[in-house]
Amino acid sequence: MSLTESAAVDVAHSASLASRRLATLNNDDRNKALTLLHDALKMNQKDILEANARDVRLATIAAESGNLSHSVLKRLDLSRPGKYEDMLDGILNVRDLDDPIGKVTLRTLLDDGLTLERVSCPIGVLLIIFEARPEVIANIAALAIKSGNAAILKGGKESMESFAAIANVVSNAIAESRVPVSSIQLVKTRDAVSSLLAQDSLIDLVIPRGSNELVRFVKDNTKIPVLGHADGLCSAYIHADADVDTAVKVIVDSKTDYPAACNSLESLLVHEDTLESVLPAVAAALLEKGVTLRCDPDSKSALTKTLPAEKSAQLQTATESDYNTEFLDLVLAVKTIPSTDPPTTAVEAAIAHINVHSSKHTELILTQSKEAADMFMSGIDSAGVFWNASTRFADGMRFGFGTEVGISTNKIHSRGPVGLEGLTIYKYLIRGNGHGAADYGEGGKTYIHTKLPIDQ
Amino acid sequence: MSLTESAAVDVAHSASLASRRLATLNNDDRNKALTLLHDALKMNQKDILEANARDVRLATIAAESGNLSHSVLKRLDLSRPGKYEDMLDGILNVRDLDDPIGKVTLRTLLDDGLTLERVSCPIGVLLIIFEARPEVIANIAALAIKSGNAAILKGGKESMESFAAIANVVSNAIAESRVPVSSIQLVKTRDAVSSLLAQDSLIDLVIPRGSNELVRFVKDNTKIPVLGHADGLCSAYIHADADVDTAVKVIVDSKTDYPAACNSLESLLVHEDTLESVLPAVAAALLEKGVTLRCDPDSKSALTKTLPAEKSAQLQTATESDYNTEFLDLVLAVKTIPSTDPPTTAVEAAIAHINVHSSKHTELILTQSKEAADMFMSGIDSAGVFWNASTRFADGMRFGFGTEVGISTNKIHSRGPVGLEGLTIYKYLIRGNGHGAADYGEGGKTYIHTKLPIDQ
Repeated sequence: MSLTESAAVDVAHSASLASRRLATLNNDDRNKALTLLHDALKMNQKDILEANARDVRLATIAAESGNLSHSVLKRLDLSRPGKYEDMLDGILNVRDLDDPIGKVTLRTLLDDGLTLERVSCPIGVLLIIFEARPEVIANIAALAIKSGNAAILKGGKESMESFAAIANVVSNAIAESRVPVSSIQLVKTRDAVSSLLAQDSLIDLVIPRGSNELVRFVKDNTKIPVLGHADGLCSAYIHADADVDTAVKVIVDSKTDYPAACNSLESLLVHEDTLESVLPAVAAALLEKGVTLRCDPDSKSALTKTLPAEKSAQLQTATESDYNTEFLDLVLAVKTIPSTDPPTTAVEAAIAHINVHSSKHTELILTQSKEAADMFMSGIDSAGVFWNASTRFADGMRFGFGTEVGISTNKIHSRGPVGLEGLTIYKYLIRGNGHGAADYGEGGKTYIHTKLPIDQ
Repeated sequence: MSLTESAAVDVAHSASLASRRLATLNNDDRNKALTLLHDALKMNQKDILEANARDVRLATIAAESGNLSHSVLKRLDLSRPGKYEDMLDGILNVRDLDDPIGKVTLRTLLDDGLTLERVSCPIGVLLIIFEARPEVIANIAALAIKSGNAAILKGGKESMESFAAIANVVSNAIAESRVPVSSIQLVKTRDAVSSLLAQDSLIDLVIPRGSNELVRFVKDNTKIPVLGHADGLCSAYIHADADVDTAVKVIVDSKTDYPAACNSLESLLVHEDTLESVLPAVAAALLEKGVTLRCDPDSKSALTKTLPAEKSAQLQTATESDYNTEFLDLVLAVKTIPSTDPPTTAVEAAIAHINVHSSKHTELILTQSKEAADMFMSGIDSAGVFWNASTRFADGMRFGFGTEVGISTNKIHSRGPVGLEGLTIYKYLIRGNGHGAADYGEGGKTYIHTKLPIDQ
């Protein structure tokens, strides 16, 4: 076992022990820790911003010499207007959410004096791996404490100074509360990631927060369940009967509101019958916004026919790989779905294309037909399926969850925008007074199995 | 890619396609397929039992020459009284359960005309790997179809003939229904397991049904989430104030009702104050049932003092490894928890021991104190935590779930006895009429976020 590996075991082991104590604290205890954390980060704002400024100085040099992207530099800077205050407010927002722990979701009377209860509880130990954003530390610490989970945080090398300063404040603040100090551990060792990802007996869930590459690396290198998404390849399908104005509004919003987001639109499927009715208006609006359209032959020829020459000159030809690409930019791949009889067969073709090419994040149908929408909504295998509304609504805050841990494209546990609930699991509690199972069955007692009210 | 690997991809790919169609069928369609499946298995009982008899003949020879355990032979035999009928009844029982699909679990009005719904849906493709029991095919086929999931089944080599006969009947029966034939595929290739376990982009969940070794092998050799448990190391703690009769009744049932089961008791922690009050009665009852007690020095000396000489002569001395052993036999490891002031510290010591040594399956406290019980129930990190009731109640049928997919010791998705619900996940549906996200936020519209009734 290398030194790094043994250090990773120590960190994971103390997190596991802390998680067990944390799981027994009540909401007040956890909330008090969050208040202390908020106050300490507020009080030490000057020191933390000074540390952050040192990170930013180094990163600026790296960016100027082309060794770091300007977007990373931007994300690193905690002194941008409102950013520090947002971080502080975020802690209080999480604190004031409903307690996700101890919720009874099933209560059954098994027999006289023998009751079964299913109660929500923390998962245990979370490992959060993030890149430049130093405010993630405060956000994740708040989410973990509120949900009764211990968290191990590993940040990127660009935020080392900010990270150390915040870590120090977090530890001191928590030490004043009933939350064990080891509940939030910040790992600074540069090569700790692989060793931490190997601790599948002590760490229960990994949450990577950062680039697609980071998420993919984590997914490929651990047996611990990973909550997140590597890609956000969202698609829209314009059905034969789509309303023009609705299509224009929703497609433009999905594509252009924030093209770098995982919930922005990357592929557009168009029913053949709409090539000269709906598509031209949609295409014109997108081109107006600076979107590059990569079209298949049918859609390109229809648009060439219907759009003014100076517009249609901007059209590009799609290659097969464009339908598998998350552009994260003002580029959209367009594909024609042939007209069929009955029209529902075209919906099936769109579903089949999307289920093969999408990343199971969020997909969209534009149609006036409830039948087509229902078909699409049941046939699409993605976390979100929207009808006549922008893919950009796929977001925990917009869903009303109060906070967002991330967006999951997993097929089990949590899917789509994940709120605090995604950081919980449940346990089954039975209370009896000397009941044995051997007394039941043939010739013996029988189970009552009466559902009891869950809010008693 | 080897031939086996390419065959595995084909199987997984067709299962994935079938799963998407299966996901769009309604409960009636799925139930009809189950009725057809039941009727066909009933009609072909003679042929299937003949095939099974051929398996049993070969297995009997293997068992007689010591190459196969008698328990495997017993599990293989479908002609044992009531077994075939139970298998048939099981299909109808699953058919008659509530539809687990399409359940709305959240409904929010995001804004005028913009609603969010969370709806349960199938996971997708299940891979079930099982050993001798041929009736698992019918059971799993029923569970998969009812929950709208496609299933790939891989059986053990001892049940090859039964397997082929049942597979044939299943395929023909399903072909008469709207459920796609590829929804249930039975893989006979001997070396297919590793290739199937590698299909993590097409298979969503693996359910191993069989020995601890099988489950461990599967968990160690796939990136697909695994539902199940390798071990069932269940513990009981007798607190200082435990009632003697309750302790005797519950401990004896937990240990002796069915010692080979995963929910039977393997470790007994005893508060020092009960060594000469509660423990002797518990030990005497266990010895009476033929249980071997492996005791630590304190419990052994207390029992030597209190039990008749011929009883205490049977006591063995525990080694450290006994507290990590799932005996699956009439053997119980006994350990003393020192008396402390306040007494709750002893509960903490018991919790700490269990959280380190248990397999997170089911644990038990014997106490008359609600405070001690609450502490134990929140501090123990296991799927089931029981108070004055046998660990043997950890079972889907006893919990009233109607069926059981298995018992999970995972920390995410499903924990404890897993019913049909464990084979589902959810998706988020949004219905709008041209809503874009850019219209909300600073200076724009605000979200309403009103909870709507979920049963509208």
